[in-house]
Amino acid sequence: MSAEKSRRERKELTHLDEKGRSRMVDISSKRVTVRTAVARAVIEMERDTLDLILNSGIEKGDVLGTARIAGIMAAKKTGELIPMCHPISITAVEMDFQVDRKTSTITALATTRTRDRTGVEMEALTAASVAALTIYDMCKAVDRSMTINSVQLVKKSGGRSGTYTRE
Amino acid sequence: MSAEKSRRERKELTHLDEKGRSRMVDISSKRVTVRTAVARAVIEMERDTLDLILNSGIEKGDVLGTARIAGIMAAKKTGELIPMCHPISITAVEMDFQVDRKTSTITALATTRTRDRTGVEMEALTAASVAALTIYDMCKAVDRSMTINSVQLVKKSGGRSGTYTRE
Amino acid sequence: MSAEKSRRERKELTHLDEKGRSRMVDISSKRVTVRTAVARAVIEMERDTLDLILNSGIEKGDVLGTARIAGIMAAKKTGELIPMCHPISITAVEMDFQVDRKTSTITALATTRTRDRTGVEMEALTAASVAALTIYDMCKAVDRSMTINSVQLVKKSGGRSGTYTRE
Amino acid sequence: MSAEKSRRERKELTHLDEKGRSRMVDISSKRVTVRTAVARAVIEMERDTLDLILNSGIEKGDVLGTARIAGIMAAKKTGELIPMCHPISITAVEMDFQVDRKTSTITALATTRTRDRTGVEMEALTAASVAALTIYDMCKAVDRSMTINSVQLVKKSGGRSGTYTRE
Amino acid sequence: MSAEKSRRERKELTHLDEKGRSRMVDISSKRVTVRTAVARAVIEMERDTLDLILNSGIEKGDVLGTARIAGIMAAKKTGELIPMCHPISITAVEMDFQVDRKTSTITALATTRTRDRTGVEMEALTAASVAALTIYDMCKAVDRSMTINSVQLVKKSGGRSGTYTRE
Amino acid sequence: MSAEKSRRERKELTHLDEKGRSRMVDISSKRVTVRTAVARAVIEMERDTLDLILNSGIEKGDVLGTARIAGIMAAKKTGELIPMCHPISITAVEMDFQVDRKTSTITALATTRTRDRTGVEMEALTAASVAALTIYDMCKAVDRSMTINSVQLVKKSGGRSGTYTRE
Repeated sequence: MSAEKSRRERKELTHLDEKGRSRMVDISSKRVTVRTAVARAVIEMERDTLDLILNSGIEKGDVLGTARIAGIMAAKKTGELIPMCHPISITAVEMDFQVDRKTSTITALATTRTRDRTGVEMEALTAASVAALTIYDMCKAVDRSMTINSVQLVKKSGGRSGTYTRE
Repeated sequence: MSAEKSRRERKELTHLDEKGRSRMVDISSKRVTVRTAVARAVIEMERDTLDLILNSGIEKGDVLGTARIAGIMAAKKTGELIPMCHPISITAVEMDFQVDRKTSTITALATTRTRDRTGVEMEALTAASVAALTIYDMCKAVDRSMTINSVQLVKKSGGRSGTYTRE
Repeated sequence: MSAEKSRRERKELTHLDEKGRSRMVDISSKRVTVRTAVARAVIEMERDTLDLILNSGIEKGDVLGTARIAGIMAAKKTGELIPMCHPISITAVEMDFQVDRKTSTITALATTRTRDRTGVEMEALTAASVAALTIYDMCKAVDRSMTINSVQLVKKSGGRSGTYTRE
Repeated sequence: MSAEKSRRERKELTHLDEKGRSRMVDISSKRVTVRTAVARAVIEMERDTLDLILNSGIEKGDVLGTARIAGIMAAKKTGELIPMCHPISITAVEMDFQVDRKTSTITALATTRTRDRTGVEMEALTAASVAALTIYDMCKAVDRSMTINSVQLVKKSGGRSGTYTRE
Repeated sequence: MSAEKSRRERKELTHLDEKGRSRMVDISSKRVTVRTAVARAVIEMERDTLDLILNSGIEKGDVLGTARIAGIMAAKKTGELIPMCHPISITAVEMDFQVDRKTSTITALATTRTRDRTGVEMEALTAASVAALTIYDMCKAVDRSMTINSVQLVKKSGGRSGTYTRE
Repeated sequence: MSAEKSRRERKELTHLDEKGRSRMVDISSKRVTVRTAVARAVIEMERDTLDLILNSGIEKGDVLGTARIAGIMAAKKTGELIPMCHPISITAVEMDFQVDRKTSTITALATTRTRDRTGVEMEALTAASVAALTIYDMCKAVDRSMTINSVQLVKKSGGRSGTYTRE
């Protein structure tokens, strides 16, 4: 543990060993605690595209409904996608979408939670990213220029490194 | 086909049916052609983080090496992640990373190709996103504020809708 | 091919070899044609449960919206779930739900299509089953006695064996 | 927790939030206990089909052998298939098949167990369903009219809601 | 293509680009042909272990039955496991087991086939390996010293490079 | 438990029930302890092939870099590949490669760790096997005769059966 800690202090990348080779870092001796993370991804589009999403027929919001489920399911696939991520037992995932007509953007906000030996930042970031990519997919026939920005960790709590809040 | 075309002209979302419900749109009668897509994702980080990545020990570049493989493998998982995406037979994937010290960013550039009835835009966007998320994962212990921006389609060719190049 | 045909005539199980052992039967020489299948699964529940589903808040129908996406995504996973199924390139999936208040049931109807060397019956059956299981999951806290019945092929067309319609 | 409990009392769907949107409900504060579930699926077929299954060559029972393994492996995939299911650490899965010549049916019976914060009902139901679908797949060349009925929870124990036994 | 060919003649690794970086090599312009591969893996064990496998109760051969299905299902997962492998449409998989009491070994023999732009060698090797690993898993409680040897390509045919047969 | 123990003493296969049928054995009452496993796979090749791997351009070692990541990711897929394996929470994976020019071999060495109710032997064996298969894949265009040997457990510790070290 202390070797690990000193690595961190010296600002080294923990997923690389002393020879610079990738590894899944050992978390066996870390404590099981409740850990939460919130991440976002902002998808920017043409005004007409946003209108189409918001007025998509009888079952209004099916683009966002599909993106919500895609995000939740992607959170569970994080360990398969990100090579050095530990497989963990997620205990909660929620997706929220904030529409901003002024900037013509939708913000996908993912909140993930676990009770495990490592955090759920990557799960939240993956959920937000895949939700935004799903919006892209469902609208790409009308607007190929959509762009995803600001994929970032908003907040995390729990675990040795404590609470982080993006300024 | 003509119904489909008129939907497109009327700027409707093809992945929703006439009642606004999600579906995997029918591509049975589309032509098999070679289709290529290029997408990018730009990860912005602290200068120290970029230095750590570029100087990561003997086997230099293992962060980017891991991100490259993560991106290539993610391209193959696109159909599992994006609900309405068709499973397609990808024929090529390449990942390239461009480091810009001035802006302290790394651009992940994914090129995908297929010979199928639908395009590989989502595969390229997924590859670029997951590569960028992998860089985040490998460096998050030293820099939680990294942000992924400009996840976008750079270019696509092949298929009925022809060539698209981002301005 | 003729050995295969005679097996079929003698009413043998094609997924078992002459010694009765499982195998993924060879379809290399079958023709590529458009093949369609429709399958259903009927979930029976208490009247109160059906009411809850139909009145589930502002974004009405989110239970069925989630089940729709689960069904579509499950169709793509068929080859991973059913051991002797060939991985095929699905070209379309649609899910439809029919609510019958009199019998207090919801029928999940899956339509799948491909342009390949083998049919999509298993894909349709898997989509309908998983959609029904998803409804069960989302309502099980209030009604554990829900039952799924009549999981069956409704229709299929294309391929050597021609069209089948359930009477 | 008490909000959760009151929702349950008011017979609300826990996988939907107060706005009716899908979410993976938070189980972080639920207790880890041993939880068991038993589920079944009954596949009905023509008498000749049943005979073929029971007499399938030297390695008798290979249809059921394949269905058994498909069911066990599917239990492990439940979290990937059912959108709002939590990924859990299954500690045991058993599949049993009961042949009834009078009704010309095979009942697939799945027993699953875990030591986790939530139950394994969905795992048992998924295992039973996929086992039945596998029987369908292996026999469909000779009998397309097979039907799966009575997919239901037989019993569950462990967890806050206690023991449930189907009457 | 000719650049590709000259690389091969100069004995370069096609899955690395000119800078030595991994990529999924472009097969878009290769011809679709029937391609077959046969691979093997030999698992060596104590005599008592072999006896246990061969006499495993009423449903004799269930260890091998399980290994057979594991091998067939693993062939379909090759593209997910081997980073630079193309996802391909396998058209047939067969597993055969040869027991040799003299050497106290079981040889797992996998035959795979496709009609695609690239071969199925990796699929056959993966199927044979996973079948052997499954035998290890099912017997490890009684014999931890089992060893898998001679994982190799026995034969392949189809495609530009023609037929290969191991001497 | 005692029944289980007596099975073991009588040298029975725990993954088969009393009727010889496959099951995922019940580990609910086993203790959570730290468990470690080390496994290896040795890939033998032509001398020229080894040279190509060791001199693969600027980013030296990209074949081994790719194999390392493939092995680590495969460890996480063990429960999906090996039918009777329990899904477990891996807490660490490391891959090491030892090059021996004299024998013209590369040994892939996988170390896996968990804090769970069952061991990680299969995870280590799967990681070593898939790493070796990845080396095969990346070099097969120049050397189809490569052979993987000595896939075996080197060491394991933790759990009821204690420490095992291969002689």
